[in-house]
Amino acid sequence: MAGKGKILLSITGFNPQRWYEMLSEEREVVLEPDGAADPSIEYAVVWKQRPGVLAKLPNLKVIFSIGAGVDHVFADPALPDVPIVRAVADNLTQHMVEYVLWRVLDHHRQGQLYRAQQSKKIWHEPPQRPAEDISVGIMGLGNLGRAGANVLNGIGFRVNGWSRRPQEMPGITTFSGDAGLVPFLNATDILVVLLPLTKATQGIINYGLLKELRRRNGLGGAVLVNAGRGRLQRDADIARALDDGTLKEASLDVFEVEPLPKTSPLWAHPKVFVTPHAAATSDPAHLVAPMLRQMDAYERGEALDNIVDREAGY
Amino acid sequence: MAGKGKILLSITGFNPQRWYEMLSEEREVVLEPDGAADPSIEYAVVWKQRPGVLAKLPNLKVIFSIGAGVDHVFADPALPDVPIVRAVADNLTQHMVEYVLWRVLDHHRQGQLYRAQQSKKIWHEPPQRPAEDISVGIMGLGNLGRAGANVLNGIGFRVNGWSRRPQEMPGITTFSGDAGLVPFLNATDILVVLLPLTKATQGIINYGLLKELRRRNGLGGAVLVNAGRGRLQRDADIARALDDGTLKEASLDVFEVEPLPKTSPLWAHPKVFVTPHAAATSDPAHLVAPMLRQMDAYERGEALDNIVDREAGY
Repeated sequence: MAGKGKILLSITGFNPQRWYEMLSEEREVVLEPDGAADPSIEYAVVWKQRPGVLAKLPNLKVIFSIGAGVDHVFADPALPDVPIVRAVADNLTQHMVEYVLWRVLDHHRQGQLYRAQQSKKIWHEPPQRPAEDISVGIMGLGNLGRAGANVLNGIGFRVNGWSRRPQEMPGITTFSGDAGLVPFLNATDILVVLLPLTKATQGIINYGLLKELRRRNGLGGAVLVNAGRGRLQRDADIARALDDGTLKEASLDVFEVEPLPKTSPLWAHPKVFVTPHAAATSDPAHLVAPMLRQMDAYERGEALDNIVDREAGY
Repeated sequence: MAGKGKILLSITGFNPQRWYEMLSEEREVVLEPDGAADPSIEYAVVWKQRPGVLAKLPNLKVIFSIGAGVDHVFADPALPDVPIVRAVADNLTQHMVEYVLWRVLDHHRQGQLYRAQQSKKIWHEPPQRPAEDISVGIMGLGNLGRAGANVLNGIGFRVNGWSRRPQEMPGITTFSGDAGLVPFLNATDILVVLLPLTKATQGIINYGLLKELRRRNGLGGAVLVNAGRGRLQRDADIARALDDGTLKEASLDVFEVEPLPKTSPLWAHPKVFVTPHAAATSDPAHLVAPMLRQMDAYERGEALDNIVDREAGY
């Protein structure tokens, strides 16, 4: 390992042990830098790093985010001006596509209704729309959003996509920017949120936005699935929209405060399905090897992949 | 309509009105033949026809089943020896694929566990296997089974298929016949039943068969999804297998007796998800037009599609 840049591993909120072990197989890994500046640390692998910890490293060259989203990196007010690389792995995409497909199908195929009927031993078949009559709208067309859109389209749903900047996708009706948002929502029955969390998107999933979703006869209100970040949404606005029939149901993997406080009305809401930020968990078995390969490539003078746009914040 | 063969529409168990209206747009439809033999009736469109009603028709040429399965046709002890055509429609296949994908994903992504956790306000992420580590086994590789196998394979699961007669499918590991059954079950974590109901398959989903499913550490027992016919299974054996841990969970759309009696322990079983034979309902809006086209083609001397093998019973 001599001569190779060291790694600072700064993780808060979960146990870094597996990341530490796997990164250590190829490079020296530091968990707690001492007070003095350490010039041998050239890389940081982070999840919600301790604020200010990166600013103390005089030779830091690249920050690797453990998640696909990087809002947790930007939360550090003393963030050094070096490239930030987001996590991209087939495994992460696969898990997110499974989650999105699972939740969209459970709402589409009326899982909540059937579970309620079963609890009362009711044998009754409600009308069932075909997938081709349902428009799923994906907000956020990054790696995960595009993959979800394509799979939903492949199994028969109509799919709309919305992103800040214009994008073209075969088979998907795309909308973009502020001007495209209301037309996108007006054409969407099931909204799937996979946006990055930035200053521009914080709190975007609010009551006014939910009111713009399409509500058609026989479908009983629109549906919300948020697998992006909790602070994209206003928890209280979602509860209000569910209670007044604007929304029929919601699947929420993320919340304004996590873990979701026991006092939240969303826990016991009969129209809400809660998962604990588990839609697509970053797995070191799939993410460490690409990070180490990027460090080696960087030292050979090659370009980095999946670099975050600092201006846009994602 | 003059000169065109008439249709006998014989449906029991649900309201035939929409079928009657749509078939009547092109041909004369008889709901109740009078006692005398009616030589003008050349076709029958049936769901569980009244036993003996077809035998009274001296000029019956073709029987059209409203379902993909035809066990309900063969239940008539006085079945005339004319061709039987099964229902095949993209719409029916689409609905079945949605159901299979929905149920497999709900078991794979631990829906029951998350719903139980939510009811107790527990924020906990259990280990989650990737789809590529899970083998879904499809029993029955007709139109519906093949479509389900391909979609599950496409979203990342390993897929095994079993059929009575050998079949080859790209990307799917296929098994066949009596000799292939135990090896198929031994390699299957989630069993999806889409078999036809025949003398050979009646009661095939019994305790002994379920015991052969793979049970791996960390997965907590095998999973059963039956979207075929209720009489393929022994309801009591499924309850036993769930209670002793042979099965972890089951999604059942069909039952030995339907509607499922209120006295059945399956209704309130915490590991069972019940739907009322609703996985893929035959819709006249999609099935009547192909039936009428087949009648016209038959009168021009063309061959019928999707003819049932009377010897095999499906």
